[in-house]
Amino acid sequence: MDVNKIREDFPILSRKMNDKPLVYLDNGATTLKPQCVIDAVCNYYTYLGANAHRGDYQMSAQVDEAFENARITAQKFINAKYKEEIAFTSGSTMGLNEIAIMLTQQVLKSNDVVLTCESEHASNILPWQQAGIAKNIQVEYIELDHEGKVTIEAVQNAIHDGVKIITLAHVSNVLGFEAPIEEICKLAHEKGIIVVVDGAQSTPHIDIDVQKLDCDFFVFSAHKLCGPTGVGVMYGKKKWMDMLEPVFFGGESNARFNKCGDLILKESPLKFESGTQPIEGVIGMAAAMDYLQKIGKDNIHAHEVMLKEYFLEQVKDLDKVIIYNANAKSGICTFNIMDKGKMLFAQDVAGYLDSLGIAVRSGQHCAKLLPDILHTPGTCRASFYIYNTKEDVDKLVEGLKNATIENCVNIFF
Amino acid sequence: MDVNKIREDFPILSRKMNDKPLVYLDNGATTLKPQCVIDAVCNYYTYLGANAHRGDYQMSAQVDEAFENARITAQKFINAKYKEEIAFTSGSTMGLNEIAIMLTQQVLKSNDVVLTCESEHASNILPWQQAGIAKNIQVEYIELDHEGKVTIEAVQNAIHDGVKIITLAHVSNVLGFEAPIEEICKLAHEKGIIVVVDGAQSTPHIDIDVQKLDCDFFVFSAHKLCGPTGVGVMYGKKKWMDMLEPVFFGGESNARFNKCGDLILKESPLKFESGTQPIEGVIGMAAAMDYLQKIGKDNIHAHEVMLKEYFLEQVKDLDKVIIYNANAKSGICTFNIMDKGKMLFAQDVAGYLDSLGIAVRSGQHCAKLLPDILHTPGTCRASFYIYNTKEDVDKLVEGLKNATIENCVNIFF
Repeated sequence: MDVNKIREDFPILSRKMNDKPLVYLDNGATTLKPQCVIDAVCNYYTYLGANAHRGDYQMSAQVDEAFENARITAQKFINAKYKEEIAFTSGSTMGLNEIAIMLTQQVLKSNDVVLTCESEHASNILPWQQAGIAKNIQVEYIELDHEGKVTIEAVQNAIHDGVKIITLAHVSNVLGFEAPIEEICKLAHEKGIIVVVDGAQSTPHIDIDVQKLDCDFFVFSAHKLCGPTGVGVMYGKKKWMDMLEPVFFGGESNARFNKCGDLILKESPLKFESGTQPIEGVIGMAAAMDYLQKIGKDNIHAHEVMLKEYFLEQVKDLDKVIIYNANAKSGICTFNIMDKGKMLFAQDVAGYLDSLGIAVRSGQHCAKLLPDILHTPGTCRASFYIYNTKEDVDKLVEGLKNATIENCVNIFF
Repeated sequence: MDVNKIREDFPILSRKMNDKPLVYLDNGATTLKPQCVIDAVCNYYTYLGANAHRGDYQMSAQVDEAFENARITAQKFINAKYKEEIAFTSGSTMGLNEIAIMLTQQVLKSNDVVLTCESEHASNILPWQQAGIAKNIQVEYIELDHEGKVTIEAVQNAIHDGVKIITLAHVSNVLGFEAPIEEICKLAHEKGIIVVVDGAQSTPHIDIDVQKLDCDFFVFSAHKLCGPTGVGVMYGKKKWMDMLEPVFFGGESNARFNKCGDLILKESPLKFESGTQPIEGVIGMAAAMDYLQKIGKDNIHAHEVMLKEYFLEQVKDLDKVIIYNANAKSGICTFNIMDKGKMLFAQDVAGYLDSLGIAVRSGQHCAKLLPDILHTPGTCRASFYIYNTKEDVDKLVEGLKNATIENCVNIFF
C-alpha cells in the first residue's frame, strides 16, 4: 500500500488550513473523497443525468444500470447473500431509525427489552428509546468493561428473557473498540434475539462479511468510506426484508394502491426506496467501494493500526497526554491533554491544533452517555485513514507537546 | 432569457442518445445540472471536505458557513419568514412522510379527516393513508373538475367539520395544473384546517412565496430544480416547527439525553436534521437556486408556457394526438397517440421517441389514482424546462407524426 500514491488521488490534500498544509485527522466524522468518486458523481451530472427506475429511454436505462450495479457492488462489499438485502438510505442514522421503528412497531411486544450500551452513538440509542415509548419498550445497557469495551461475558450477563433485540456498533466511534459481533450473534440467535449492527465505523476500515457475522441488520454510511454524503446502506437478512413493511411510502415503492388505502408494495429492496433516490450518491458510493477494495481492507486496517501504534510510541513518555483507548486495534486515538496539573478543555486543544493545520475532533462525539464511563466531559479524537502518514502523526505529536494553557488560550486572541 | 446561452451551461446537452442529439423532455422526473451546480458539489469534494456542525477546525467552520448560507438561500428562494422554518430533507417524498407522520401522531385525533385529491403523486397519498391507520384517520378526495383540476369550489364542497388537514400538490405532476393554494389556505384557515403543499412541481418553475400562499407546510426537491438528488426542503411555519417533535433521532439533533430516555432536543431546524446531512447536496441545491434566480422565475415560466403553446399549435391539426391538459399553464404536456383508430401504448410511443433521441416519460407518473379520471391506463408526458427550444418541440412533433403502430413495434425488433 503506497500512501504517497494514494494521497495523489485526493485533490483536497493539496489545500491548506490556516496557511499550513492540511493534516486531516477527523476521519471518524467524515472522510475525504478520491478523484474516482468525484468523477463518478460528475459522470452522472454530465452524462447519465436521468432519474432511476422511471424513464422509457436509453439515458434512463443507463442510470438504472449504474444504480443497480451499485447495489451489487454494495452487496459484495459486505458479502450479503442476496442483492435484495441491500436497501439504500440517506445514511446510517436513517437506517437505524427505520430499523428501530419497523422492529418496534412490527415485531416487538409491549415491555420487550432492547439491549445496547453506553458507548453507542446517539443514533443507536435515541431511535430505540423514542420508537419504544408507545409500546413501553425498555432500553437496557450492557455493562462496559474498565476500558469501555463490550465483552461477550457482559452481553451474556445482560441477556434475560425480556431481551428481544441487541443493537451495537461494530466499532465504537469514540474508542474504536470492535465488539465481538459474531459471538454475540451466536449467543443471541440461540435465544431468538435479533441483532442490529451499526457498521458506520467498521465498514470503512475492516473487512465486513455479514454472512459470517450472521447479524440480522447492518447499516453504514458512504461518506465515512470516501463516498458522498446523504447515502448509505441498510442491510437486512432476506427474511426480514421480505417480512417488514417500510416506514415511508411514495412513488416507485408501490405496485398499486387505491383510494381506500389498500396498498400492494413492491418486493424488497424497492419497497424501502420511496421517491427519487440519491442517485449520484449511490453511484459515487460504489466508486468509493471499488477504490477501497483495490487497496484492500486488510491493508487499510494494518495501515491505521500502524499509525496508531506509532502515535502511542511517540507519546508514551509524555505524561501530559492521557490516552483512553490504547488497546483498541483501530485508527481511533482518544485523548486529553494535561498542563500544569490541569486538564485542558478538549475544544481548546482542538482549536490549537487547528491553528497548526491539524483537524481533530473534540467533545462527546455524539456518544453522550460515554462521559460517565470515561469520567471526563469531553475528549479529543484523532482518527486515521488511508491517506494519513507518519509525518501527520509527527505533526500531531509536536502539536500536543506544545499544547499548553497559554498556547491554547492565545489562539483566541 | 437566452436559451442558447443557457444550454451552454449544461454539459450533458452535448451527449447523444441512440446516436441522435439529446432532446430531454422528462424534466418533470428530474432536471439536468448546470456547470455551476457541478462546480459547487466538486468544490465541497476538493476544498471544503469536512462534516457540518461537528468539527473544531477551519475547514469544518467553512463547511458550516456554506451549509447555513444554503439555508438562507433556500429561505429566500421561497420567501420564508425565518431560516428556522427551513429543514433539509432527502427530498419531497421524505418531507411529506415526515409531515404526515408528525401531524397524524402529534396533532390529529382519531377519525379526523385528511383531504387530498386523486391527481396527487403517490407520495402525497400513501404517507397519509399509512400514517393514519393507527388512529383511523380517513383520507378523503376533493372532486376534480372535468379537466382534472382542483377548484376552490370543489375544496369548499369537500370540507366538513371532520377535515383537519388539506394536502395538495401546488402543480400536478401529470397534468401541470396549478391549484389555487392561496385561496385554499384562506378558506382552510378560517376553519382551523392545516394546509400542506407539495411544491415538487411548482418550485422549479414559478415564483414561490410561502408567506403569500400562507400554507402551513411546503416541501420540494432539489433535483427537479437543477440541483442534486437526495436533498430537499421541508418548510413549516415557525409555530409548527417549534411545536412538532421530529420523526428521526440521532446525532446533532439533540442537546442532551440520558439512559432513561429523557431527551432535550435542539431548536428547529436542527432537531429535524439528525445525522450527517447531504452536505454537497445542500450546497449544490443553493447553487441551483442562485442559478435559477438569475434567470428569473417569471422568465422560466413564460418560456415553458411558450414552448407548450408552440407544441399545441403544431399538433392542433393532428387528430392522432390526444392532449389531456391543453389548458394547464405550465410546461407539462400530457398526451396519447392514436393510429388506425387505436390508441398506442404510451410506453411504445416513448420507446419510439427514444430511438429518435427524445426523452419523454410514459405510464402513470406515480399518480396511480388519476387514470380513473383520465380514462386511460397511461399517458406520455413531455415536460419542458429552461434549456428546451422550439427545435426540441419540432423534433417531438415530427416524432409523433411518425409514431405509427408499425414504427412503434419496429423498435423492438
